[in-house]
Amino acid sequence: MMTTHTGHTDAIAASRVIGTEVYNTAGEHIGTIEDVMLEKSSNGIMFAVIGFGGFLGIGEKFHAIPWSVLDYEKDRGGYVVPYTKEQLKAAPAYSINELAGKDGEKARDASYAYYQVDPYW
Amino acid sequence: MMTTHTGHTDAIAASRVIGTEVYNTAGEHIGTIEDVMLEKSSNGIMFAVIGFGGFLGIGEKFHAIPWSVLDYEKDRGGYVVPYTKEQLKAAPAYSINELAGKDGEKARDASYAYYQVDPYW
Repeated sequence: MMTTHTGHTDAIAASRVIGTEVYNTAGEHIGTIEDVMLEKSSNGIMFAVIGFGGFLGIGEKFHAIPWSVLDYEKDRGGYVVPYTKEQLKAAPAYSINELAGKDGEKARDASYAYYQVDPYW
Repeated sequence: MMTTHTGHTDAIAASRVIGTEVYNTAGEHIGTIEDVMLEKSSNGIMFAVIGFGGFLGIGEKFHAIPWSVLDYEKDRGGYVVPYTKEQLKAAPAYSINELAGKDGEKARDASYAYYQVDPYW
């Protein structure tokens, strides 16, 4: 998922990312990409928002997953993340409001620290 | 629209950006944000996709607008870009397919060159 040596990159539409299923490397279904959080004032993709649980959206909690760990697997028709269910269950989780605006940065920082992903910023 | 000195940034959900109206500084309605193009293999927001014209989506052409030039104006409830209608009409325009995948990078490069926006990559 790193930029290639030549710097070339493919473009993917946010509208196509949203709604895509997410699995882990063990093949377990983790959730669905509910949204992608973008930096307002610079050019970074902050994280993908993955929903897990809640009933009809009530009390639903969300994970902030670093964009760079999402690996699209064509055969599975979804993204794969290299985490166990236990790791994901113990990860920081947020209401949707806690992921937007000024709070989004806090969620981003906590997520990158938890998953030990190098900051892009 | 640049990162502040402290590096803090607000988060905005891609789903909220999509569907937002776009005006120019003269107050003319330019179009609607149809999508946001994301780099697959690195962490950059490539550009916003603005639709203009076509009938029921047939023959519709799209602009690639650098993310950094979109300025949200609360009073207007939409984004404002600093271009005249003439500048926009003469800008590179694409079918939606020409903005995705490997072609997205070409559209991005042409757009940043046309609008004279410094590359983020």
